[in-house]
Amino acid sequence: MLNNWSELGAEYALIGRIARAALGGSDPLHLSAGASLIEGIGDDAAVLQVGDRLLLWTADMLVEGVHFRLDWMDARELGWKSLAVNLSDIAAMGGEALGALLSLALPPERTGDWLDRFIEGFLECARRYGVPLIGGDTNRAASANGALIIDVSVLGSVQEAPVLRRGGQPGDWLLVTGALGGSRAGLMRLMQGDRSDSEALQAHFRPVPRLAEGQLLRAGGIHAMMDISDGLAADLPKLAYASRCGAVVQSVQIPVHPAAQRWCEQRSEDPTLFALSGGEDYELLIAAAPATAQPLMEMLPAQTGTSLTPIGYLVEEKGLWLEDADGNRTPMPAGGWDHFESIPGV
Amino acid sequence: MLNNWSELGAEYALIGRIARAALGGSDPLHLSAGASLIEGIGDDAAVLQVGDRLLLWTADMLVEGVHFRLDWMDARELGWKSLAVNLSDIAAMGGEALGALLSLALPPERTGDWLDRFIEGFLECARRYGVPLIGGDTNRAASANGALIIDVSVLGSVQEAPVLRRGGQPGDWLLVTGALGGSRAGLMRLMQGDRSDSEALQAHFRPVPRLAEGQLLRAGGIHAMMDISDGLAADLPKLAYASRCGAVVQSVQIPVHPAAQRWCEQRSEDPTLFALSGGEDYELLIAAAPATAQPLMEMLPAQTGTSLTPIGYLVEEKGLWLEDADGNRTPMPAGGWDHFESIPGV
Repeated sequence: MLNNWSELGAEYALIGRIARAALGGSDPLHLSAGASLIEGIGDDAAVLQVGDRLLLWTADMLVEGVHFRLDWMDARELGWKSLAVNLSDIAAMGGEALGALLSLALPPERTGDWLDRFIEGFLECARRYGVPLIGGDTNRAASANGALIIDVSVLGSVQEAPVLRRGGQPGDWLLVTGALGGSRAGLMRLMQGDRSDSEALQAHFRPVPRLAEGQLLRAGGIHAMMDISDGLAADLPKLAYASRCGAVVQSVQIPVHPAAQRWCEQRSEDPTLFALSGGEDYELLIAAAPATAQPLMEMLPAQTGTSLTPIGYLVEEKGLWLEDADGNRTPMPAGGWDHFESIPGV
Repeated sequence: MLNNWSELGAEYALIGRIARAALGGSDPLHLSAGASLIEGIGDDAAVLQVGDRLLLWTADMLVEGVHFRLDWMDARELGWKSLAVNLSDIAAMGGEALGALLSLALPPERTGDWLDRFIEGFLECARRYGVPLIGGDTNRAASANGALIIDVSVLGSVQEAPVLRRGGQPGDWLLVTGALGGSRAGLMRLMQGDRSDSEALQAHFRPVPRLAEGQLLRAGGIHAMMDISDGLAADLPKLAYASRCGAVVQSVQIPVHPAAQRWCEQRSEDPTLFALSGGEDYELLIAAAPATAQPLMEMLPAQTGTSLTPIGYLVEEKGLWLEDADGNRTPMPAGGWDHFESIPGV
């Protein structure tokens, strides 16, 4: 039993705890109507076999003051991001998104023009990825100055089999799509009231769900995948733990986002360490056999314009290490984004 | 464009507004992966055709201070109710529930024992109706005294075709399961600090989703169905409007919950009017041809123990009327529960 937030530690622990209370351990779990549960709590999305289809199902809640600040973020950008972060969970399983539900708790000042712009941004993302908004629930916030709450649920579908976090094997390469640290650079600038780097703000406000990339990677035969929502330093341990492997990350290989590079250059910070702790990038982290990974590194940029960069490998020995250019290993620094911590400055 | 809450009026209007922005009007809407949307926003649940199955999908958000008060309601009861109100939406389509996602925004004092009891109550309902909790999202509330927010999404399945709100026809009988006004009697007593009527409190705290009843009614060939969450006076207009009919309710026929009867007797209130405005009963409202309704009125109690009572009929003329024992008609009083209004006393 948990008594306070420091004991609680992380969202991950709480979800696991509810999962253990919820599910007896029969695998797969038989549901009503001949359906069965293939994967429950603990991956990016739940997986259900329903009739002849494999369905993916996820929900993500955004809380004002925890996940966003309305004095920093336009309604339209918030609308986009609310859906995009959920689509990223579907992408992380290699699936297609079918539709979305939107639930809102709205303080009174978030009606009118503000709400119109929020819905516009949400629907812009919905149209861009062909995911209609098909239902939801709207509510008054608890008090006039109550927090705005956004909860989105997305249903998806995946062919043959989803890519789980737990499929990694020792010797697999670790790879990431795109570049890391851009969203964090945007957040750091916002904290200083600096809106000069539009690429940094764009990375923070308008994450791109890697849906097409996830589907191609799944079809290419990768072993494991997840999205990087809390930073590589926080998310890689989850993939490694689920795969019962350790991991080595070669720090010089980490693709650092140009906006993160600029931020770090101005302050003489280490861009690699900055990018390792960069929450909300929503890039994909992959484990794949080297023979699978190599052709995908050419195919993915050619077909989607998105890079795929090897950053290390899985090992048998449990633990997480950073390896420098000379091959020296140090334990991976803890870090990344914890949803039980507030965003700074709130 | 809406500028304030009084213009906004009701949750129903906002959902319809988002629906119009979301969907172009193509019917059915084709989704990814060969799926299609049969029903979007506006019924109790969305309906999707995915492969060889018809899926139902719904979400309901409960906001502290709007939908519940924690000084009135035990964590365990709140856990039960959070799932039960969502299952009621699946029941209202004649479906079976497959699984649930739970998203929480938790103020710090709602961890530990409190959270354990909440999850116990949620899982008690989940086990009772065979609906596993298979995922979700947990978050810190915005501030130490932030409101507790609960958002539940439920996925269901329905055989052949769901029962929609819009299938009613002039001449159909209107019927309700169980009895009305019990939950409101519980709420009224709580507002006075009176916990003497345990049946009233039970009706308010532990609504019973009519899943088995909804499935039997669907199989029996009824025309239209919805659950009564906002009170008959607020919900019947939705069914009548969707069915392009008017409705006549015979006031002497309305089955008044014993707890509502007791409350009204002590105060010389009219129990029929009280029950008409009784939010959160989660009984089913049905429209069916008389020849369909009559055998169901015997079959439903025999198979489920739940009564099915005729309360009126649909008519061609648009409008809503109450008819007294002498056949005199008066316009139906407006009323019921509006989720944009606070619960009294908050």
